[in-house]
Amino acid sequence: MGKTAQLNAAVLGASGYTGAEMLRLLAMHPDMTITAATANSLAGRRLESVFPHLNGVFDGEMVRLEDANFSNVDIAFSCLPHGTSQDAIAELPSNCRVVDLSADYRFRDADLYASVYGREHLNAEATRSAIYGLTEFARLSLKDAELVACPGCYPTATLLCLLPVAAAGVISKQNIIIDAKSGVSGAGRGLKEGNLFCEAAEGLHSYAVGTHRHAPEIEQELATRFDADLTVTFTPHLVPMTRGELVTIYAELSAGETVETVHAALSEQFKDEPFVRVRPLGDLPPDTRHVRGTNRCDIAVFKDRAEGRVIIIGAIDNLIKGSSGQALQNANVMFGLDETKGLDFLTPLFP
Amino acid sequence: MGKTAQLNAAVLGASGYTGAEMLRLLAMHPDMTITAATANSLAGRRLESVFPHLNGVFDGEMVRLEDANFSNVDIAFSCLPHGTSQDAIAELPSNCRVVDLSADYRFRDADLYASVYGREHLNAEATRSAIYGLTEFARLSLKDAELVACPGCYPTATLLCLLPVAAAGVISKQNIIIDAKSGVSGAGRGLKEGNLFCEAAEGLHSYAVGTHRHAPEIEQELATRFDADLTVTFTPHLVPMTRGELVTIYAELSAGETVETVHAALSEQFKDEPFVRVRPLGDLPPDTRHVRGTNRCDIAVFKDRAEGRVIIIGAIDNLIKGSSGQALQNANVMFGLDETKGLDFLTPLFP
Amino acid sequence: MGKTAQLNAAVLGASGYTGAEMLRLLAMHPDMTITAATANSLAGRRLESVFPHLNGVFDGEMVRLEDANFSNVDIAFSCLPHGTSQDAIAELPSNCRVVDLSADYRFRDADLYASVYGREHLNAEATRSAIYGLTEFARLSLKDAELVACPGCYPTATLLCLLPVAAAGVISKQNIIIDAKSGVSGAGRGLKEGNLFCEAAEGLHSYAVGTHRHAPEIEQELATRFDADLTVTFTPHLVPMTRGELVTIYAELSAGETVETVHAALSEQFKDEPFVRVRPLGDLPPDTRHVRGTNRCDIAVFKDRAEGRVIIIGAIDNLIKGSSGQALQNANVMFGLDETKGLDFLTPLFP
Amino acid sequence: MGKTAQLNAAVLGASGYTGAEMLRLLAMHPDMTITAATANSLAGRRLESVFPHLNGVFDGEMVRLEDANFSNVDIAFSCLPHGTSQDAIAELPSNCRVVDLSADYRFRDADLYASVYGREHLNAEATRSAIYGLTEFARLSLKDAELVACPGCYPTATLLCLLPVAAAGVISKQNIIIDAKSGVSGAGRGLKEGNLFCEAAEGLHSYAVGTHRHAPEIEQELATRFDADLTVTFTPHLVPMTRGELVTIYAELSAGETVETVHAALSEQFKDEPFVRVRPLGDLPPDTRHVRGTNRCDIAVFKDRAEGRVIIIGAIDNLIKGSSGQALQNANVMFGLDETKGLDFLTPLFP
Repeated sequence: MGKTAQLNAAVLGASGYTGAEMLRLLAMHPDMTITAATANSLAGRRLESVFPHLNGVFDGEMVRLEDANFSNVDIAFSCLPHGTSQDAIAELPSNCRVVDLSADYRFRDADLYASVYGREHLNAEATRSAIYGLTEFARLSLKDAELVACPGCYPTATLLCLLPVAAAGVISKQNIIIDAKSGVSGAGRGLKEGNLFCEAAEGLHSYAVGTHRHAPEIEQELATRFDADLTVTFTPHLVPMTRGELVTIYAELSAGETVETVHAALSEQFKDEPFVRVRPLGDLPPDTRHVRGTNRCDIAVFKDRAEGRVIIIGAIDNLIKGSSGQALQNANVMFGLDETKGLDFLTPLFP
Repeated sequence: MGKTAQLNAAVLGASGYTGAEMLRLLAMHPDMTITAATANSLAGRRLESVFPHLNGVFDGEMVRLEDANFSNVDIAFSCLPHGTSQDAIAELPSNCRVVDLSADYRFRDADLYASVYGREHLNAEATRSAIYGLTEFARLSLKDAELVACPGCYPTATLLCLLPVAAAGVISKQNIIIDAKSGVSGAGRGLKEGNLFCEAAEGLHSYAVGTHRHAPEIEQELATRFDADLTVTFTPHLVPMTRGELVTIYAELSAGETVETVHAALSEQFKDEPFVRVRPLGDLPPDTRHVRGTNRCDIAVFKDRAEGRVIIIGAIDNLIKGSSGQALQNANVMFGLDETKGLDFLTPLFP
Repeated sequence: MGKTAQLNAAVLGASGYTGAEMLRLLAMHPDMTITAATANSLAGRRLESVFPHLNGVFDGEMVRLEDANFSNVDIAFSCLPHGTSQDAIAELPSNCRVVDLSADYRFRDADLYASVYGREHLNAEATRSAIYGLTEFARLSLKDAELVACPGCYPTATLLCLLPVAAAGVISKQNIIIDAKSGVSGAGRGLKEGNLFCEAAEGLHSYAVGTHRHAPEIEQELATRFDADLTVTFTPHLVPMTRGELVTIYAELSAGETVETVHAALSEQFKDEPFVRVRPLGDLPPDTRHVRGTNRCDIAVFKDRAEGRVIIIGAIDNLIKGSSGQALQNANVMFGLDETKGLDFLTPLFP
Repeated sequence: MGKTAQLNAAVLGASGYTGAEMLRLLAMHPDMTITAATANSLAGRRLESVFPHLNGVFDGEMVRLEDANFSNVDIAFSCLPHGTSQDAIAELPSNCRVVDLSADYRFRDADLYASVYGREHLNAEATRSAIYGLTEFARLSLKDAELVACPGCYPTATLLCLLPVAAAGVISKQNIIIDAKSGVSGAGRGLKEGNLFCEAAEGLHSYAVGTHRHAPEIEQELATRFDADLTVTFTPHLVPMTRGELVTIYAELSAGETVETVHAALSEQFKDEPFVRVRPLGDLPPDTRHVRGTNRCDIAVFKDRAEGRVIIIGAIDNLIKGSSGQALQNANVMFGLDETKGLDFLTPLFP
């Protein structure tokens, strides 16, 4: 995999799971060179001493954000927490195009951001014009984007399932119910009791029922396809596995529509997509195992027992298509590279 | 725990998980003596050689069904698969009262059984009069019952959440959506690839979407409270943990009803129940970890983001309240014992 | 399980895993009443809000250590970290007999404690006279003990396997190698990255190779049986499971001894023990699954491929026989109760 | 990853875990084209229907062994069970060079094979001349090899740790103790109760204590370095994780040798190896997490508490360096390709 280093990349916030995954993916990308990895609390430490799995992948040390040299950086990936990310991005020089993996620029409306994240947005204009980077639906805008906001993991899986059917008019905007399940890595590397092995293993529970911040993000994007505001029901669950995310979506068919027309809308949308696979009707339900370690999304459509309803299920790896992989996919489009570059050789680790 | 052996108990089909759990619970019950444990393929083997965890719990060997002596058995627990169970129960002498953990006598309508389980029911009359043993709602009938059909694990958790609110008229019978999640022991001890550690660990998927046999069972029972037929949406998922089951139920409020009235209906119903706990509004969501190893059901009610909707979540241990524990609870009632006997000292194993 | 409250018990340090398990076991003990549970950082919170699994088990709130009333306490269980435990115990009134689950009083030699734990021991006399509470070998001393030091989890499993064979002279004190494996709960509830689900699941590693603090503890006790100092090899490993501990011990047979004589020494020692089971020669190796949730230790002996060697394997639940269960077993003996009280109904949760 | 198809590859026995992993790796190899995948029981099924994770990786269907066309196959990988593999390989045409992942050709002595595997070897001559494919030690012989026997997973990890120190004379051949731990995938995809999720999760046990077939394989190879026969102690354990293998090896230092000289022997041996990494003295112990999904082996050396002893620990992914990855590495050498081809982009999936 001879490297023809064309693009200099920086990773902000390298000490978390999305940061580590970003570095791993960048290190394998033939056209990217990592020139900086920031992590304030770990500054001065070699990356492999913090993440031994990156030994032989990236041979460098972490620096404080303020000590990083961004003057020659083409693309900065911010894996910082929301709020912090916004502040850091504001300081970057103009030569840096930015992919933000945090929630800071996902809302076009700064007031909505403030109400959902409990923090005033410092740059209402930037958030209004930032590109919402669900790659499959954002390619044209990505080409010239200076600032791309990567979707949250739950919105990524959900919107891939729902945008095509919303746009096709085959389901109602009423009573969309999203029952979501995520592996523990979705909760990040934060030291919380709930993330301890002994508390997460052999157990299952929902959290943030009715209040999770990804719901308004999903609604913002769906509204553009339904051409109307809507409210979705959204319940996330924590599942005792590391990677993987599954969304089970219950929806009402529009008059005259069927499971077949829903399936057709999805199949048509994604028929040429490298990373989204719509399974044939009647096939097995998606399993997160079958996309683990990849940038893929598996989608399937099922007939409900109740008349006039449909079930759509989507599966992704929350750390790849749900964050760092999609960030890289976006960067590929931003710089005119083959969109699959650095992502195409990822195959699921099974078993 | 001095034993005053009053009741002789037999376990049919002792080699599976529900059979093993039945034996473990019976062995600790102060008023029950295990007099027979049948398992055709393992006949002649000491129980502890098949289930080393039962060493010191039950000191006996397994026999073939036809070799068991039922003449002095007061209560037989059938842990056989459906179909097989029906046949075995038909042969038992009249001195045996029966708790059937299989699906064979759950449907009052033999035709419904035939259509759901693909096998003609051999005893339409018995299934019509068998008691559906969701203990909290069946006590009066249980006292004189000769044949009790234990509910399935999913129906147990679901009906505990829904029967009180259906009866109280606070939710609509339309669009009830049950997104269910179970640990792998719910699939039994059968040797199937999907049950292998390497296929179930680190993965998550739904199964039997729209077609699972527990849906008509749920509908049968709900219909009696709604006083009308209905169709529910039901999607089970396989979660990489051994024990535990969670149902996340989405329902529409009846006109004028609120989350508070739903909560009140549940609290009122279960306020004196030893095994069902309705959490205060605003409390944490139920976690299967908190009921694991017990006969309990934890229930909580949540406000939905969408107007006019409510979310009810229930958690049980599928092998105890979802099968063998409830079977024993039923037997206690059948024989006039304290309903909690042999079950009250079970506390959750945490972590 | 009617309670005839005879003994008042206090738990110091109730917020960790051993504290929670201590409370769970005490709450089920027919002759013990919990009168205080201390946890400085959680003072004022109801126990069930911190440990929802204890709902219905213990109905009280936590207090600060200095706010607890010990005047009527018969037995105090200290689940505090080492160092802290020593300080707290020093302040207890003389009416409290004490079982210390920390390492503070395990060494008879205060200087050895200081060198191993890097902290001067404040009470050399007390540590010299404290009883090392490996119950099966300490009964006589326990009866009048004021201060009992519970063994570490690794020493418990190891010494049960080795003390009888050391005493019988059937193995050499040279080249004893203990390869130990523990579930993650052995590392406590501390918020460390290594204890996170995402870092512990699907991985395996050793730690503290050659330097773990349980090695000198094992040596202290073995020395009394060999009547000579010795050095053992001890390597612990962290296994992706919550509870359970396995020690695989490699030893050299004394001249003329065989696997059979080793097995005989163990069988003879433990033939009447309620909690230690020596498996027949040729039986399956112990599995932590078969003792999980109990106060038991399973032991088996195997012929090595190499001449003159033997392999002894022991399995316990690290949170019960390895800590809180043994603490209660000790307390039973201290107060002249049946040693199995409150522990006899624990059966393994399988699967 | 443009393919310049030079070599035609066949996989025999594609339905197991090593077969599936072989196909996954081959499909990503730039110079290999899969022309046949055999699986008698699944003949006619598309590979992706059996292994959905291979969707998009290999687009073909499985055939019966006798229906496969081997006339244009350059390299056949046999993932069949031992015994079966031997028979199948005997039928292959001479144009096929063979890498056998089974145990059939690992022993140079057919009688030893017969005694260990309980089956007469049909081709004593072939097993005498087959190359034992521990790649790092077999390169010269591999170039012209017609038949390569891939080492077992345990021998791979063990021999990488021990061959260099045996050859350097820094450890004794006496009392080498190998305490090995493997994830469940090491047991294959066979339908056995012990491989069920509910039996393997949350448990730990040893198996085949003193009798495992990998011990004589380890001895055969070590004997060549010690230039003397020897007997090793070898105890495997089953760990509740899918992939990963750790060997903890206890050895006696030769007179005058130290941990440092042991470390030096390993470092010198592997200093230029792409897949073997010897960690600096004092570094953290190897974790299977850090090699998962790769062809790497991590090795570390530790001082024992006991004088004159040393501990060497090695970690691999049992399905890659322990089987299919090493098979591909061998094939690369056999055909004069860059040894890392198709394997170099595998980085550990963490978390």
